[in-house]
Amino acid sequence: MTIEITGFNWVPDFARGYVRDLRPRWACEEIGLPYAMRLISPLPPKPAAYFGEQPWGQVPVLHDDGVQLFESGAILLHLGERDERLLPRDPQARATVTAWLFAALNSVEPWMFELANVEIFSAKEEWAKLRRPSLLADTGKRLDRLADALGEREWLGDGFSIADIAMVTVLRNADHEDLMTSRPRLTDYVARGTARPAFQHAIAAQLADFQPEPVAA
Amino acid sequence: MTIEITGFNWVPDFARGYVRDLRPRWACEEIGLPYAMRLISPLPPKPAAYFGEQPWGQVPVLHDDGVQLFESGAILLHLGERDERLLPRDPQARATVTAWLFAALNSVEPWMFELANVEIFSAKEEWAKLRRPSLLADTGKRLDRLADALGEREWLGDGFSIADIAMVTVLRNADHEDLMTSRPRLTDYVARGTARPAFQHAIAAQLADFQPEPVAA
Repeated sequence: MTIEITGFNWVPDFARGYVRDLRPRWACEEIGLPYAMRLISPLPPKPAAYFGEQPWGQVPVLHDDGVQLFESGAILLHLGERDERLLPRDPQARATVTAWLFAALNSVEPWMFELANVEIFSAKEEWAKLRRPSLLADTGKRLDRLADALGEREWLGDGFSIADIAMVTVLRNADHEDLMTSRPRLTDYVARGTARPAFQHAIAAQLADFQPEPVAA
Repeated sequence: MTIEITGFNWVPDFARGYVRDLRPRWACEEIGLPYAMRLISPLPPKPAAYFGEQPWGQVPVLHDDGVQLFESGAILLHLGERDERLLPRDPQARATVTAWLFAALNSVEPWMFELANVEIFSAKEEWAKLRRPSLLADTGKRLDRLADALGEREWLGDGFSIADIAMVTVLRNADHEDLMTSRPRLTDYVARGTARPAFQHAIAAQLADFQPEPVAA
């Protein structure tokens, strides 16, 4: 049985290489697990049936031998259960990885969502201009805590894991920002992650799957 | 071995009953698992050692028979692994629960964080006043999707699970809002969750643990 991952067949330039099917692609590449893509259009109206698979109309969805699930975090956990190279089996090591997996998605990514909102989606709104300084300051404090917690370690757990796939892809959303370039410990961490051959394969595959212009599903 | 959960020994009135140690308390109550609280002060400066347990200085942290972890989502998953009443063992049922657990924390709670920011923490800021209408509208769209996905089911999975502990506690953050009261399917869902004896025990225990006035750790 081949794993199937949903992705978009087109997105605007600024989102290319950042769509979240990158996470399961990367995980599959790390363990040499073959996967097939099912590409859908991001344009409305999305087929009603797709909301039955993914309640927000987003990607990715994973199908694996009759099991179907959504949310990139849950998909990473599912793939981690398949291979200890992604999720260690020792109880403390596993707990550390799952803690950081949730931390990436619940304690760091929400800041990135708001940053994208202020700097891209709502950039022309007056509120976004007024909001930006305090958001950058508060996000910076959160990133300082993350840098402290990472310390001199290479990865968040004892070795590379799904926690790093989540955190590196979260932090990449700010990779053009002073927020990141002023924090070399985090910049180096993201560089270590994105230098991995599995990441390189995954992002090249995502970029190759986009059509040049929007197309219907 | 008794489970130990960290909580705060005082928080402002508006936060009482909403601090996130409520989640593991509720999970433990559902399965009759005894737990002890370790209450810390939320006031700065927090002991440096605590950041080694919880990188953001928040609660909860769980200690369980030598295993230590942070992030309420990871703690719910850990407790779910201990008892199938919290996390079913069938592969599809498990996948559905983990998908909704992550959905609560990565696809719904970030909207609640921003709502709390606009309505409480930054309520007097000009940007927050300007931001509020579009935030309410966009959060409402997300909640509409959630209500559609829940449909006529009682819980997010086949039965009550850690996904509901996460989602009910997330939605309770808006329980005073038109956002929720205008969506009876979600209001009823939260009411079903909070009517459970385990929730009632958990919230009573959290409220009883707060000191009337701030105290040092």
